[in-house]
Amino acid sequence: MNTNRLNSFTDGVVAIIITIMVLELPVPKAPGLAALVPLSVLFAAYALSFVKVGIYWSQHHNMLQAARKVSGPVLLANLFFLFWLSLIPFVVRWVGEAGITRDTVLAFGVVMLLCAASFAILRATLISAEGEESVVAKATARGRKGLITLFAYVLSIGVALLSPYAAIAIYIAVAALWLVPDKRFEALIDG
Amino acid sequence: MNTNRLNSFTDGVVAIIITIMVLELPVPKAPGLAALVPLSVLFAAYALSFVKVGIYWSQHHNMLQAARKVSGPVLLANLFFLFWLSLIPFVVRWVGEAGITRDTVLAFGVVMLLCAASFAILRATLISAEGEESVVAKATARGRKGLITLFAYVLSIGVALLSPYAAIAIYIAVAALWLVPDKRFEALIDG
Amino acid sequence: MNTNRLNSFTDGVVAIIITIMVLELPVPKAPGLAALVPLSVLFAAYALSFVKVGIYWSQHHNMLQAARKVSGPVLLANLFFLFWLSLIPFVVRWVGEAGITRDTVLAFGVVMLLCAASFAILRATLISAEGEESVVAKATARGRKGLITLFAYVLSIGVALLSPYAAIAIYIAVAALWLVPDKRFEALIDG
Amino acid sequence: MNTNRLNSFTDGVVAIIITIMVLELPVPKAPGLAALVPLSVLFAAYALSFVKVGIYWSQHHNMLQAARKVSGPVLLANLFFLFWLSLIPFVVRWVGEAGITRDTVLAFGVVMLLCAASFAILRATLISAEGEESVVAKATARGRKGLITLFAYVLSIGVALLSPYAAIAIYIAVAALWLVPDKRFEALIDG
Repeated sequence: MNTNRLNSFTDGVVAIIITIMVLELPVPKAPGLAALVPLSVLFAAYALSFVKVGIYWSQHHNMLQAARKVSGPVLLANLFFLFWLSLIPFVVRWVGEAGITRDTVLAFGVVMLLCAASFAILRATLISAEGEESVVAKATARGRKGLITLFAYVLSIGVALLSPYAAIAIYIAVAALWLVPDKRFEALIDG
Repeated sequence: MNTNRLNSFTDGVVAIIITIMVLELPVPKAPGLAALVPLSVLFAAYALSFVKVGIYWSQHHNMLQAARKVSGPVLLANLFFLFWLSLIPFVVRWVGEAGITRDTVLAFGVVMLLCAASFAILRATLISAEGEESVVAKATARGRKGLITLFAYVLSIGVALLSPYAAIAIYIAVAALWLVPDKRFEALIDG
Repeated sequence: MNTNRLNSFTDGVVAIIITIMVLELPVPKAPGLAALVPLSVLFAAYALSFVKVGIYWSQHHNMLQAARKVSGPVLLANLFFLFWLSLIPFVVRWVGEAGITRDTVLAFGVVMLLCAASFAILRATLISAEGEESVVAKATARGRKGLITLFAYVLSIGVALLSPYAAIAIYIAVAALWLVPDKRFEALIDG
Repeated sequence: MNTNRLNSFTDGVVAIIITIMVLELPVPKAPGLAALVPLSVLFAAYALSFVKVGIYWSQHHNMLQAARKVSGPVLLANLFFLFWLSLIPFVVRWVGEAGITRDTVLAFGVVMLLCAASFAILRATLISAEGEESVVAKATARGRKGLITLFAYVLSIGVALLSPYAAIAIYIAVAALWLVPDKRFEALIDG
């Protein structure tokens, strides 16, 4: 089986996930710019959700670009990953609506950890389908970023119990880590 | 006609169906984890809906991977299948909101039976378009899983009248049956 | 320019249009089957909308299958067609909620006419881009169905003023006309 | 990396953005045509939003048709562009609901400017990935339309402070500029 449909289905689901929040932004009835002020927290939450989901889409794009075929377990691992990804707009919005508290930040961290863990499982099933010598295995072999991300999210869950703002600082650091483009994939695929 | 657009349209529709419920999950205004408790039934219903639709997408992916061309009747059979599939989130959510009762479980079983039956019709039209000697016909020839599923859903409708919980046990058993990856397709397509 | 992206974008938009109504079906809070009865009109309207949009998708699929390239005007004509198509769920739902009256049936007929007319414009721009000798021109050359459809919708607008039920009979006849698969396209493309 | 998945993901996101407003059009309960009158402003706003997003999709289609490969920065620039594009239905609807006032027209102009600017950034990253001698660079080299658009939107923000109607005239002029198909791309790609 090749990767075409897995990619096209994933693109459709991620396209919906990334635009869910803008679907729900309430349009103010009042004409003045002041009417936008109460929406500023939701706007910031939408932007954060967009960034997080967008980074995962880029990672998925890069990893599947290196993959040559998919197996039954890869399909299931991909669905498992998409399930947790679909909860990102939900927890981001909860932080946006209920405020930065211990429990909302904790829930955000748990969903982030489950996304990162299920993405790691997806990578493992892809490598298992293609072998340790495959392009996808080599391209991700020294993937320190993935390990750092998993470690940071586990850490953030403990930190959130002490200080939600410190946990948010960890989340922003992880996003910054991934916004730097991944040269390894590009180098391996193009040459 | 080749299968590209049938797949891409189906992927789009299934992507929407699989994420409909998360679009509608109400975000709590309260900041404590206790605010998530009333949503736990809806979360479980969303997860169940995701699993059921995800299994059908995987089956569709596997079957169409083996198909080489589509005909007019295949397009219609595919639309007929997508129609019933689109009602899964509706009945799953009804079970989630109104509880596990005779009528809600019955409605769930009827929609499940119609999905399974229309998927069987789709398979029949594909084989009719390609011939009994085609890859898709051979790959699904000894498809006991399909027959067991149809039988189980018919049975569950009778069982639901006596005990909704027994019917739910049947649904879970059917899902477990399909979560085991289908080796037949992979073997036939890859070699 | 080839037809890949026009098709993939159209598939995405049509996938959303065809599932809009199920997104909005209200889930009853009561557990009995009686709770579904008030929804039966909306269910029927959803099924009708699904059939109408599904037929247009099949037609679009068949026509673009025969096309080889797209031009700037084709992109615009396609967007123009999608705009009117996106109003089908709106008018269907208006009939479902406000009942079968002169004005609701009239609005339905006007949107249907605009869909059929904009689809004819799309066909004309495709032929203009590829020439009168192209596959798409030949495959649709004796397209009596298209002319009959346009004529039927114009007629139905007059009829609706006298009897909305007679207009609905015309709409059903047109749908039946298109549910018969189009052999011309399949014959020309496959051989 | 080739452009397939970037296109397919973008098509999914734009398909949702372009249909968001029709998802939210309230269906009247009354059966007479008079019930549609209060919706006429929202209908016009939906049509305007459809045209604006449709033009951007066509531009994106044309530009990516000329591109051969994508890089990490291109993925990010594309996400950045899609983020601002997703705010078009929001500001269009705000104009539709709150009326043509200084602040609503100003917000519309700011979002339009950010869309045009982020599209220019996307073009710059594509050219940076492929080189100044690439097809995409040549096809867009004398892109006066892009510069005129950016200038017009900057101008419109100042104009909106004096007269919102004059600013709207600028927006309509820009849309008309883009509805004329772009011959340069077609000529370069097809021959």
